[in-house]
Amino acid sequence: MAHRVGKQTIMLDNEVCIKGYASVVSKKEGEGPLKDYFDKINLDMMFGQDSWEKAESILQKNAANICIEKARLRENDIDCMFAGDLLNQCIGSAYGLRDFPISFLGLYGACSTMAEGLGLSSLLCESGAANIALSLTSSHFCSSERQFRYPLEYGGQRPPTSQWTVTGSGAIILSNDTKTCLPLKIESVTFGKIIDLGITDINNMGAAMAPAAADTLEAYFSDTNTSPENYDLIVTGDLGAIGSNLLNTLMEEKGISLKNKHKDCGLLIFDRKRQDTHSGGSGCGCSASVLCSYILKSMENGIYNDILFIATGALMSTVSNQQSETIPSIAHLVRISRKEGK
Amino acid sequence: MAHRVGKQTIMLDNEVCIKGYASVVSKKEGEGPLKDYFDKINLDMMFGQDSWEKAESILQKNAANICIEKARLRENDIDCMFAGDLLNQCIGSAYGLRDFPISFLGLYGACSTMAEGLGLSSLLCESGAANIALSLTSSHFCSSERQFRYPLEYGGQRPPTSQWTVTGSGAIILSNDTKTCLPLKIESVTFGKIIDLGITDINNMGAAMAPAAADTLEAYFSDTNTSPENYDLIVTGDLGAIGSNLLNTLMEEKGISLKNKHKDCGLLIFDRKRQDTHSGGSGCGCSASVLCSYILKSMENGIYNDILFIATGALMSTVSNQQSETIPSIAHLVRISRKEGK
Repeated sequence: MAHRVGKQTIMLDNEVCIKGYASVVSKKEGEGPLKDYFDKINLDMMFGQDSWEKAESILQKNAANICIEKARLRENDIDCMFAGDLLNQCIGSAYGLRDFPISFLGLYGACSTMAEGLGLSSLLCESGAANIALSLTSSHFCSSERQFRYPLEYGGQRPPTSQWTVTGSGAIILSNDTKTCLPLKIESVTFGKIIDLGITDINNMGAAMAPAAADTLEAYFSDTNTSPENYDLIVTGDLGAIGSNLLNTLMEEKGISLKNKHKDCGLLIFDRKRQDTHSGGSGCGCSASVLCSYILKSMENGIYNDILFIATGALMSTVSNQQSETIPSIAHLVRISRKEGK
Repeated sequence: MAHRVGKQTIMLDNEVCIKGYASVVSKKEGEGPLKDYFDKINLDMMFGQDSWEKAESILQKNAANICIEKARLRENDIDCMFAGDLLNQCIGSAYGLRDFPISFLGLYGACSTMAEGLGLSSLLCESGAANIALSLTSSHFCSSERQFRYPLEYGGQRPPTSQWTVTGSGAIILSNDTKTCLPLKIESVTFGKIIDLGITDINNMGAAMAPAAADTLEAYFSDTNTSPENYDLIVTGDLGAIGSNLLNTLMEEKGISLKNKHKDCGLLIFDRKRQDTHSGGSGCGCSASVLCSYILKSMENGIYNDILFIATGALMSTVSNQQSETIPSIAHLVRISRKEGK
């Protein structure tokens, strides 16, 4: 049985641990500061396909396959998989995963998808509804840019607030069989509420998403009666430089200082100046590929023992934007710890 | 604890029951055979808004509010909500539900969303991860047609295989507090695999989705060692006339006869000839509004005591279709029973 504490947080009473994780990225990510942590760097942005959307499917399929292999499993061992992406009707996931003979749960959480999938799959493993579950997501710079903004050929100038969609995918396999796992376990899950403070600029996703991250973090600390000092790392998904500053300001207004504890996957994955990515990385694949490389590897190595992973998503579409709507956002939080003595 | 039987089916060991359900539809559905079962028939397809997308959000919000009211709850009593729809980036759900102070889990399962949400919310209630959970979905004829097919003003002729997207929404609240519930409970959940048999005609969704329904049904009967005779009703989401025929044929090939047990929400909601809806109704809102009106009301009245609800979804997008891709589909199954002695 799981149990709830406070308004939003779910504590896992039965142990659920990470059995394997994998990340696949492309050229630009493979030239960034985390290049040594990724499982695969595919230099061909097309992944051997004739469209960017098909490329994204292959990217996600690759991450799933490498993750299954690293976990020393076969496809048939996995009870269910949670996936989603940014493309219309989440075709990155549906086409990327259609060959797997595994129950499929499609998600749409925009860039919060990795935390949503990780949270839900951990709860299913906790209760025995699944014994082994896969969660993954992806994004692709080219498929995303042309869908949400301009045709790439147009060469539209990017404002300083804009972020660079990561071409990458991350996958995690969880299990309730704790004997065969890595020494990493899921402690709790906090699913966020939809937050909309009226931001309308689709070139400033960080500002739109920061209030959601602040809301979920505040709920978590209140639910659990803890504070940032209790954790080694609080890592957000893809707020970038502007969103990260805003998150810190919003949290300080709530009387909570994230100082020295907060990092953002969008700031970790690229060298912003050298790689010209403006406010940093973004996309479902940003938090997924950073979590499933640098973050979890650092936990395995004992650099971090107890972290809060918060992925944020902006829930607008091009149509809602054209209809002058504001941008609702969401943030889901998963606490991951390293098991002692391992 | 839940437990798994066979390859795909999850049995709920702790009782989870339906605390309330609601349906909202528009004019055409309100002129159909089920008109007396819906909670609200809104004659204005615009729902007082200035765009069809915004109308769909209000439709979904209405269904949520009526459901909460019928369940005699306040918003704050609900631990989490699962929702999704057909629009790009699921804006029907995100905008429709952004005012609710409730943890939000976005889904994308196309027209399988009602079963996916019902399945996941029942599992969270079963384990105590949630005590009260809402699941809902919607579709709108106008927002859907212009997104997936042609501008409505174009007046494109519809082929006989086409289906009519239902303007409707259905919502269900589940709870693990069985004392205050309706006499309806969730027995088991079977999440489907992605099935793609190579259909490419986006005007023949029924044919694309029938193989997924057949696959999940076969898995369910095999996992549970039961057959159609064990149930009062096997109700699919929106296969329509062509898809329903195909499902029956596919099942007969597997040696399983659905005869006299099978109905389809897409065939129940419209009078196909009088209302000129070709192969029948479709859309996330089709199975959702029929389940949350006629089906559950008939169960409350003891007409059906044990049913299998299978919602099917076609996981393509206009982009995948333009890139000559086939249509992957999925079907999720939820077994719902009426508690004896009530």
